Amino acid sequence: MKYKSDIEIAREASKKPIHEIGAKLGIPSASLVPYGHDKAKLSQDFIRSVQGRENGKLILVTAINPTPAGEGKTTTTVGLGDGLNRIGKNAAICIREASLGPCFGMKGGAAGGGHAQVVPMEEMNLHFTGDFHAITSAHNLLSAMIDNHIYWGNTLEIDVRRVVWRRVIDMNDRALRDIMTSLGGVPNGFPRQTGFDITVASEVMAILCLANDLEDLQNRLGEIIVAYRRDRSPVYCRDIKADGAMTVLLKDAMQPNLVQTLENSPAFVHGGPFANIAHGCNSAIATTTALKLADYVVTEAGFGADLGAEKFMNIKCRKAGIAPDAVVIVATVRAMKMNGGVAKADLGPENVEAVQQGCPNLGRHIANVKSFGVPVVVAINHFVTDTDAEIQAVQAYVAQQGSEAILSRHWEHGSAGSEALARKVVELAESGMSHFAPLYPDNMPLFQKIETIAKQIYHADEVLADHKIRAQLAEWEKAGYGHLPICMAKTQYSFTTDPSRRGAPTGHSVPVREVRLSAGAGFVVVICGEIMTMPGLPRVPSAEAIMLNTQGQIEGLF
Amino acid sequence: MKYKSDIEIAREASKKPIHEIGAKLGIPSASLVPYGHDKAKLSQDFIRSVQGRENGKLILVTAINPTPAGEGKTTTTVGLGDGLNRIGKNAAICIREASLGPCFGMKGGAAGGGHAQVVPMEEMNLHFTGDFHAITSAHNLLSAMIDNHIYWGNTLEIDVRRVVWRRVIDMNDRALRDIMTSLGGVPNGFPRQTGFDITVASEVMAILCLANDLEDLQNRLGEIIVAYRRDRSPVYCRDIKADGAMTVLLKDAMQPNLVQTLENSPAFVHGGPFANIAHGCNSAIATTTALKLADYVVTEAGFGADLGAEKFMNIKCRKAGIAPDAVVIVATVRAMKMNGGVAKADLGPENVEAVQQGCPNLGRHIANVKSFGVPVVVAINHFVTDTDAEIQAVQAYVAQQGSEAILSRHWEHGSAGSEALARKVVELAESGMSHFAPLYPDNMPLFQKIETIAKQIYHADEVLADHKIRAQLAEWEKAGYGHLPICMAKTQYSFTTDPSRRGAPTGHSVPVREVRLSAGAGFVVVICGEIMTMPGLPRVPSAEAIMLNTQGQIEGLF
Repeated sequence: MKYKSDIEIAREASKKPIHEIGAKLGIPSASLVPYGHDKAKLSQDFIRSVQGRENGKLILVTAINPTPAGEGKTTTTVGLGDGLNRIGKNAAICIREASLGPCFGMKGGAAGGGHAQVVPMEEMNLHFTGDFHAITSAHNLLSAMIDNHIYWGNTLEIDVRRVVWRRVIDMNDRALRDIMTSLGGVPNGFPRQTGFDITVASEVMAILCLANDLEDLQNRLGEIIVAYRRDRSPVYCRDIKADGAMTVLLKDAMQPNLVQTLENSPAFVHGGPFANIAHGCNSAIATTTALKLADYVVTEAGFGADLGAEKFMNIKCRKAGIAPDAVVIVATVRAMKMNGGVAKADLGPENVEAVQQGCPNLGRHIANVKSFGVPVVVAINHFVTDTDAEIQAVQAYVAQQGSEAILSRHWEHGSAGSEALARKVVELAESGMSHFAPLYPDNMPLFQKIETIAKQIYHADEVLADHKIRAQLAEWEKAGYGHLPICMAKTQYSFTTDPSRRGAPTGHSVPVREVRLSAGAGFVVVICGEIMTMPGLPRVPSAEAIMLNTQGQIEGLF
Repeated sequence: MKYKSDIEIAREASKKPIHEIGAKLGIPSASLVPYGHDKAKLSQDFIRSVQGRENGKLILVTAINPTPAGEGKTTTTVGLGDGLNRIGKNAAICIREASLGPCFGMKGGAAGGGHAQVVPMEEMNLHFTGDFHAITSAHNLLSAMIDNHIYWGNTLEIDVRRVVWRRVIDMNDRALRDIMTSLGGVPNGFPRQTGFDITVASEVMAILCLANDLEDLQNRLGEIIVAYRRDRSPVYCRDIKADGAMTVLLKDAMQPNLVQTLENSPAFVHGGPFANIAHGCNSAIATTTALKLADYVVTEAGFGADLGAEKFMNIKCRKAGIAPDAVVIVATVRAMKMNGGVAKADLGPENVEAVQQGCPNLGRHIANVKSFGVPVVVAINHFVTDTDAEIQAVQAYVAQQGSEAILSRHWEHGSAGSEALARKVVELAESGMSHFAPLYPDNMPLFQKIETIAKQIYHADEVLADHKIRAQLAEWEKAGYGHLPICMAKTQYSFTTDPSRRGAPTGHSVPVREVRLSAGAGFVVVICGEIMTMPGLPRVPSAEAIMLNTQGQIEGLF
């Protein structure tokens, strides 16, 4: 049997006008700001007007540690949303926006797949409604104003060696990672070494995704630490007086974007912070607004549950005052096999034993998520080569852990394939079983928070950190930042900091290489291992094959 | 009498839904791609569908050499468009988009003024419909792909010292003018010195503004010279295989934006190339499309007529196959006084003599424009302090030159104030007097084209260029670029290359400092004097005062 490609399926979509999609959530046409006929932003006035309403149920979709086999987290998020609508719930989906830069490298789009996609996928993978461009502009305005302040006399006494605010661009451009600026003499300022990160790594992105409203946004922007003086005292964004203009630049970007699935379910696609040095979830304002409009809101978190779900619970839920009513952990038979030691090239033939050997990775994620007090269901995202015996092996294993694994065929069949998953999710969410609590209290010392995550989520024996790092954490506690949650930046491929260690390892250590304070976003970033905040392009970038075909359609983007 | 500020007037505007504005030009609602309720892009299909129609009349608005007193070229363009609609013509306005960067420096918006404005002015001065962001992305994708090509083996044998394609950002950021990239060792590539220009200075901007359609756009992008080899042979954008992906990024940006004036006249606001190293006009596709839809199209060109009108005639009209039916030269009494030697602080009291002494600057522009074979009218953009005697002095002078100067009070009264100007423009445009011809033929040698402009437009005695520059021009002629028009980059404040020489000087020389080939845009840039392609921020940037007020309105942007 020949399957259609994602883009073939997407092009056949019967999209409805966006005001009809909004009407499903009771959004009046006048409260939608259209961007073309199939995208719209929610007006700020409307968002304010629904604040008094009850919340719907919140479902988090997370996953095992990703493998090259692919898990299909976004696909399952979309499929579940469609499935919930199919069984009579009024459901909305909340996912992240795609970064433009990587689309020209080797990554395809980020809008689901098969018959579980969000459309218009081309536009979502290009400029969309301009949110990331606005974030880039706001970030770089601050950068320009910092160097301009130094140029005109530096009355704030910034130590030019300690400017920590870099620049950003939504492009994979390794040449900009490490640069020297202000060459060329007096009219160009004081030369210093700095660099560019990709826009999704900007603290402005994290802030936009955690801010409740424009006022909160401006306050958080003002709190950004941009540099230090010789006496190590911080210089804030608000000292540079950039927070007002940055808020103006971000005014429209703060409004969630409404699009639709192939089955015309409403989908909010908004924000997209990095999942390593930031928290990796779509915007709080999109999720909290969706909860006022829908019975069910299905959202996802970046990477595997050890990073994504942990940060969703400990950062996003804490800051936004929300709690999941059920969690879906996505697994695939193929990924279980890879966790069981099979190479990607050998995934074809049935191998029940390898599946069984790989299951403990899934098992640990189940236990971890349950430790937050929320009910869990496993979704086996069906792949056409899966055998019944392999599927049953996963289901048997999950049953032993006291949970249930539901086979979901949304990729092939859309909502008809995810109906069983949707019913199970409703059962869990309406059971009253969720008694969510974050993993650690605000007032726990920062280093103890790191240890709590490392031991309880990663099952590590210890956290290794030298004196300098511990002293830095203590200094931040003294400065009033001790209440902040931790944002772990480690490899997504393993519970450990070694990407090659699959399965469910124990007895390992978590070495902390560096800590960073994101005072505006409101978390302490703990870097364990090499974290790349500016990707490069591959030898043959996908951009070389991206073009308009003779029908004016985009080829090569997916 | 107290006059309202531009922003107060703009906020009181009775904007109509954008589809009603489109309907005035016979654009079906389905052919408008909405961006909010008051902005839309014209669909490519619709643009193609009107190609067979007759053209309306084309009116160019240009000006004397700008002075600190201000001339109001955009204001007059808008006022004239409204005036033409008032007297029963179906008129559309075509102007440039504003650059975001300078708005945070010290420049106000660029959407007219008083009762002759285009709205929504806040959005036009911020992200608008994202065109400039798309241009920035397309430009920088090419930059990243060039360095990436070098990184992965440099099979094109690019001389890393001779990469001429820089990067761009829509920000005033002097620290990025001159930078060293790819520091940090092997994984970051080969260090080299380069820099950023502001987005409006990108050749991609000039190309977008001269391309007829997406196919032409891609061809022109492919022609961009990005670097040279050791043997000085050029490496093109199409060698890097970036032209397809750049076209995809620019697909929506190629669609003209429709907005409206305060009096609900249709206005196309599209493109905005620098007026020094590029040609400084709105997009060809907007102008040519507007000509298919309206009886009258009023457009403007950057800077004074010596640069703006000259390039409009010799570059834009030549490439787009259009010709103006009449030209309006904007002058003010105050600017005449400054040309007559009065300082800005002393412009208040009546000074007829100074007005008369300044008039020769206007006179030369009148003669220059007439030399293109097009009829001319002078618009005296009325300022509230102008005295009758001063106005009469200008009118008398212009009458001596065989033209007419019409007092226009659109700033104060909207179309009621520009009715006389509109009637005169119609009289000229319908007189059949226009026999437009560019100043020089395609096949004239490049240096001779430069001399033609310098002698006939600037009234210089000679062009000074050393052997290296003449040899470079000869080399380009040999390489097949001899047919290109010239794009002069010199000060806007004088006919000479010395910004302090007002009036109508003679006997001067035009020293050529540098020549650059914009092979994609299709012109040879001739740089006479210091040209800044990346502005800086002032000591107190206007960004410091830009913020949202408690009503959510933007303050400080204007």
